Order: sequence, then C-alpha cells, then structure tokens
Amino acid sequence: MYEKVLDLLEERNFKAIRELFRDMNEADVAALLQRFYDDGDIEGHQHIVLFRLLNKDVAADVFAYMDSDMQKLLIESFTDNELREVIDDLYVDDTVDIIEEMPANVVSRILRSADAATRSEINQLLKYPKDSAGSVMTTEYVYLKKDYTAREALEAIRHIGVVKETVYTLYVTESRVLIGVLSLLDLITADEEDKIEDIMQTNIISVNTLEDREIVASQMAKYDFAAMPVVDNDNRLVGIITYDDAMDVLQEETTEDFSKMAAVAPSDESYFKTSVFAHAKNRIMWLLVLMLSATLTGAIVNKYQAAFAAVPVLVSFLSMLSGTGGNCGSQTSTLVIRGMALGEKQMRDFFKVLFKELRVAIVCGVILSVVNAGRIILVYRNNKTVDCYKLAFTVSGAILLTVVLSKLIAAMLPMIAKKLRLDPAIMAAPLITTIVDTCSTLMFFALATVVFGL
Amino acid sequence: MYEKVLDLLEERNFKAIRELFRDMNEADVAALLQRFYDDGDIEGHQHIVLFRLLNKDVAADVFAYMDSDMQKLLIESFTDNELREVIDDLYVDDTVDIIEEMPANVVSRILRSADAATRSEINQLLKYPKDSAGSVMTTEYVYLKKDYTAREALEAIRHIGVVKETVYTLYVTESRVLIGVLSLLDLITADEEDKIEDIMQTNIISVNTLEDREIVASQMAKYDFAAMPVVDNDNRLVGIITYDDAMDVLQEETTEDFSKMAAVAPSDESYFKTSVFAHAKNRIMWLLVLMLSATLTGAIVNKYQAAFAAVPVLVSFLSMLSGTGGNCGSQTSTLVIRGMALGEKQMRDFFKVLFKELRVAIVCGVILSVVNAGRIILVYRNNKTVDCYKLAFTVSGAILLTVVLSKLIAAMLPMIAKKLRLDPAIMAAPLITTIVDTCSTLMFFALATVVFGL
Repeated sequence: MYEKVLDLLEERNFKAIRELFRDMNEADVAALLQRFYDDGDIEGHQHIVLFRLLNKDVAADVFAYMDSDMQKLLIESFTDNELREVIDDLYVDDTVDIIEEMPANVVSRILRSADAATRSEINQLLKYPKDSAGSVMTTEYVYLKKDYTAREALEAIRHIGVVKETVYTLYVTESRVLIGVLSLLDLITADEEDKIEDIMQTNIISVNTLEDREIVASQMAKYDFAAMPVVDNDNRLVGIITYDDAMDVLQEETTEDFSKMAAVAPSDESYFKTSVFAHAKNRIMWLLVLMLSATLTGAIVNKYQAAFAAVPVLVSFLSMLSGTGGNCGSQTSTLVIRGMALGEKQMRDFFKVLFKELRVAIVCGVILSVVNAGRIILVYRNNKTVDCYKLAFTVSGAILLTVVLSKLIAAMLPMIAKKLRLDPAIMAAPLITTIVDTCSTLMFFALATVVFGL
Repeated sequence: MYEKVLDLLEERNFKAIRELFRDMNEADVAALLQRFYDDGDIEGHQHIVLFRLLNKDVAADVFAYMDSDMQKLLIESFTDNELREVIDDLYVDDTVDIIEEMPANVVSRILRSADAATRSEINQLLKYPKDSAGSVMTTEYVYLKKDYTAREALEAIRHIGVVKETVYTLYVTESRVLIGVLSLLDLITADEEDKIEDIMQTNIISVNTLEDREIVASQMAKYDFAAMPVVDNDNRLVGIITYDDAMDVLQEETTEDFSKMAAVAPSDESYFKTSVFAHAKNRIMWLLVLMLSATLTGAIVNKYQAAFAAVPVLVSFLSMLSGTGGNCGSQTSTLVIRGMALGEKQMRDFFKVLFKELRVAIVCGVILSVVNAGRIILVYRNNKTVDCYKLAFTVSGAILLTVVLSKLIAAMLPMIAKKLRLDPAIMAAPLITTIVDTCSTLMFFALATVVFGL
C-alpha cells in the first residue's frame, strides 16, 4: 500500500489516492500516513499533502489515530479554519488526549479554535488527576428525561445521536443526577408511547470521577459493559467511559506492569520515539540499586574465603544455586502479581497463597535436589579431592532451602507491597532475585561449613 | 453482602433475598453464589437454593458468569426442564465455553436439552481449533437483506433483536456472503424508506474463522470495533466476535505471556483451582532445564580454580556480575516481547532495535562500570593482597561487556523466536539470564587471567 501511494503521489494522481482512502478504515489510513511521516520524505511534507486529500468527514477520525508528533506537525501546518474543522469533529476526550501531549503554544491555538462550550468541557476534563476515571471519560453521551415517551426519545437520538460517542447506552437524569439507564435496544423494542421511566433500569452501576482508571476498566471487563457512567460526589452524571477506551487502558496498564516487573521505569512514549538517553535513564536506576545490593552477596562470599579455599569446587555451584532461586522466585512473583492485577487474589488470601506456594516449593525443591544429588554423585564419585556424598548433601540441601525461601519471599512481597499501597509489580523478578541471592549464598556456605567441618 | 444473605437464608426469608438479587448486577450475583460455593456450607446446597431464587430472565446470565466447577454442580442438580430453560437463554458461544469444561456425561445432557438448531450450532462451533476466531465467535448476530427498507430492517430487529448478542452492528448478506455493514444508529437516523444497500458501508473489515484469536482481538482494539464479522474461506458470514469476548481474549493471552515469561507453563485453570502437583508440574520442567544448563557455568568456574585460588576476592564479584547481566537482559527482552505483542515492533525493525539496544547498553554499561570501579578503588585501596586498580579494571570491564552482550542477546532472541514461529515470550528473563550467566563468567575469568597475568 505504501509503495502504491508513493507512486501515485509521484504521478500526482490525487484522484486515485482519494479513492483509495475512501475504501480504507480510518485506523489504517492513520497508520499509512504515520509511515510516510516516519520513513518518508518529511521535507516534502507528503504526509500533509496526503492528509489534505482525506474526505472532510473522516479527517478528524484519522487525526485521532495518529501519534502526537505527527499531530503536532499537522496542527502547525493547519490554517485556523482547518484546525477548527478538525477540533469540531473530534470527540472531546480525544481532544483532551491530544492537548496533554502538546506544547503550550499549540494548546492555546487548539483552545482558541474550539467553541466556548467545547473549551469549557476541555478545561473541565484537563482538571482530573492522571489515571483517574475523569481523565479518560468523554462528556458526549445521550441523556434523556424520565417522562419522555419511547418515540420522543428516539426522535431526540435521531437529532443528536451522530455527534455522540455512543448512543447504545442511554442515561436518564433528573437535575443532572443519574436515575436510570436503558439500552437503545430497550428503546426500539418498547411500545412507542411507553414512558422512559417504565423501561429504564434503576439498579445502576457507576463509578466516581476520581476512581482509578484501571479499576474502572477491569469492572467494565467484568460486567461486559460497553459504557460505564461516571458520576461526581453528588451522583450527578458527568461523563461516560466507552469500551474502546477501557481496552486501551487495560493494554497500557499491562504494559506498565511489564516494564515495572522488568525493573524499567514505565514511559508513556513508544519504544522507538524514546531516545537512547531516555531509555538508559529509565533503566539505570534499578540496575544501580540492584548492582550495589548484590555487593552484599559478594561480602558474604568474601567472609567464606576459607571455605572455598579448602573446597574450591563449592564455588562452581553458586551460579546454579542463585539461578534456580531467582527462577523459582520469578515464577511465583509473576503469578501472584498477575493474579492481583486481575483481581483473582485478594489480601484475604494471603495465607492461602503462602501455604500453597510452600507446598509447591517443597515438591519442586525435592525434585530439583534429587536430580542434582544424582548428578553430583555421578560426576564426583571418583574424585579424590572431595567427598561426593557430602558435596551432594550440601548442594541439594541448599537448593531445597533456596527454593522454599524464594517462593515464600516472592509470594509475600507483592502482597505486602499492595498492603503498603505500593505497586505490587515492583516486587518482581529482579528485586526478588537479588534478595534471594544473598540468602541462598549465606545458607549454602553456612551448610558447607557444618557438613565439611570447616 | 455475603453475611446479609447468610442471615436471610437462616431466617428462610427468601422474599428478601429475591428482592436483593433483583437490584444486583448478574456478575455480582454470580460472584456472591461463587463465594457460597467456595466458602459456604456446600453440603447444605445453599448456592443451589440461592440460584433457584433468581428471576428466570436473569438466571442464564448469572449462570454464564460462574466458574465451571459450580456450573457442573448446578447442572447436576437441575431437572431436565430447568436445564432446558437455562440453555435456551444462554448465548450459543457461552454454551460452547461451558461445554468445553464439562465431563462427557454432562455434555451429552446439555446437548440433549438444546433444540435441534442450537445443537447443530454448538457442534459447529466445537469444531473450530482452540485459539481460532471460530472458537470465540457467536453465531447470534442480526443479518439483513440489501433490498430491505430502513423501516423493514428496524421491524426485523424489533422481532429478533432481544435474543441476539449484539444488534448495534448489523450485517448485510447475499446468499450468505457478507456484502455490507451498518450500525443501528445509521439505521435509525436514515429515512424510513431508504434502502439498506444505500446506507450500508461496503469497505468491510472481517476475519477468517481460522485466524488467531489474539490477532483478531488486537485488530478490534486497533479499529475500536464493538463487533468483528467472521467469515469462511468463501467470504460467507458465519459469526461475529463481540468486544467483551475480545477483551477476555486479550486478558487471557496477556496472562499466558506473563506465565511463559516467568518460565511457567501456562494453564487455563485459575491459581486456586490448580492443585499443588499441577502447579509443580507447570514449573518444574523449566527449572530443571535451567538448573542443568547452569552447570555449564559451574564447569567454567571449575576451569578457572587456579585464578581464584590466586585472587580469591574475584569470586565475590560473580553474583553481582551475573545479577547485572540478568537484569539488563530482562529489561530488554521484556520491552521487545511486549512491543511485539502490541504490534509496535515488526521483524523489519530487527536491526533498528539491535542498534538502539547497543547504544542504550553502552550508556548503561559505562555508568555501571564507573560506579563499580569507584566503589572497588574506595574499598580495596589499602588492601595489601590485591591491586585495587587491576581489580577495578577487570570487574568494570567485565560489567561493560556483560551489559552489552546481555542486551544484544535479549533483543535478538525474542525476534528470532518469532521468525521461527515460536512464541517470543519464552525468550524471557529466565532463559536469557542463564545464557548470559555462562558468557559473563567466561569473559570475567578470561579478562582476570590476562590482567593479573595468571
């Protein structure tokens, strides 16, 4: 497609491009323009030329799908009139998302282009804290009065529906307080003269503007809602969150968890847009902390120099031991962190999880110990410098202890973090590996000292 | 809520419970019954009593939200009539999900209870491969003929709409081939006498029944679709996938990725429902493989016994070195794996990613090396047994090499896995840590041998 459009551009065959665009989905057009921006001849402003070829009624939709760098460039190339048209056609929540990424001069141009009502809505939405329900909601929903008839309501939707983000869930308000919900299907299957208050459902699930957006998105997934009403402290309806935004929230929050669990500071920018130094900055902090913490393990090793001077082969098991501890820990912490994110594991399950992990650890630990003891006896049975049974006992004993300890620590830390209102995701593999490393090294040498009588 | 219902149950105040249930969302009722099943007095069959108190028109919805153990128990307690009523009210795709979890005797009872048409749909859906679009789609959608008028179409929806999973996207077919889509909003804002073929959109995005369900769900997220049409090889419409099922697919696939990245074999069962031995079985394979691979590192250490016999303090840096390598690797592999899952990184970006990681690695590696060299010189400057500058040079040099190597390996392996049609998620922290460990140990001792002239 890229090559095709490039050829048409060179032939200046704009009509053909226009027709191509007409048959494409808006998200795909945006992706294509994005590729012209990323790889193409930016100086030639091909992406701007292409954007201007779009049909007016889809231009705003395409614009909403682009990334912020390209949006900024386009806004700078817009005339005031063009900007006004795009802003008019955008949903208010999308405009707010765009504004949040723009420098001040572009923001003020956008605000100047919006009409007074839209401007006040934008300003309202900008006030909600980051990651709150208010910050992802849209103010464009359909609300009805309870004494409308079904026919009147349908009439109202016909008039206002097309500019609202969703018309499939309808809200009934009385002095702005949310008193009922109904679906468009309820409405069209109702008798024409039925009153709204007789069709609407009154057991309403709604969220507060300040609720965490991740919790709202999980609730929507739980209830299979296409839209969730957002109310203020006085139960007045102020907006709705639609399923597509909820999906995005879930994806973003998961990506954030992945980053944190890999000891990377999460970033809103995409991988390629982030500079090398910004990437390094996001990663170096944890690397430094963990590297310096690991020197504790080094200090323990130094303390036992006499032990491995006497039995040098001991040293060769350190890496296997700490690797196994780290792997066991990351298995458990990942399952616990993900389970908490999905709401499957609650704080009240603390001891249940601990007990389960203890038993799993014993099963895994025994198997690993036995395999390891077998391997050591096989390899070292004719070795004159070391007693293979003592060695097998020391290493296998240390493995069993390490597995149990690492699984227990890895199960506890994420839940304790949650209790302390920290994000459980930081208690993941890297941190737990470092902690377990120190403990397993200490246990190993302590055990060796006793077994070999050093 | 649980305590309240428990009290009401003991007072045998069924009327009050019924009223309570009437005001609750179906998902919440299911969660409540689930708690009675998990914690409550199962012998007394309280959860069955409670289920029978539900209003007939919500019973099937509540049933669909429960977990399979409880569904099985309820089915066993149902009369044939009760079972038929529930199956009648369930959406076909939910019935299929339930059937997939049931033992053979329950399955045949369910199939017997379904009417002939439903039974044939169920059998059809059961044939699609696991994880395919066909396996998650529903066959309950509204399709229209192109020569309907808007009024006729609305009339049709009024009649059949309530039993369809979604009526908000409507499909136009001709001899079962999908030729157009329109939204319910398009329909109600159209003129009553407009022909469907004049309102419908003809640039249709659809997926094949055999397409991977994860790819379909990501596409729905990308296009913000509430429903995606699923077609067979002849472009005949056979079903649709709705946004709520797409959300579930995304959540499940992400959980699977988390598991694989933590070296745990993914499981369909929830954490608590999985037995201790099943948990151990899911984890032990990778632990064994990684443990035995780590003995390679041990062999390298053994080969250099002379080196650390001469400079024993060298051993104390092994753990820090391998920890840092592991952490750097897991940062990179996590970002790459997640980026590929979200479609941000493509195979064509292979060298772009590699070059970026190389530069990030050099920045991080230099910082870590310098900090580390400073610390070593500070600690060992008055140490008579070792030359602190040589030591600092060896350790810092090994760190720099390890960081660069680990980030490059961690960037390459997931992308190579993808190329080989393996799941990139298996190329995550545990495996990469083990590989990097071996390399970093070898580099460290090789460097030490040269620097200290051993």
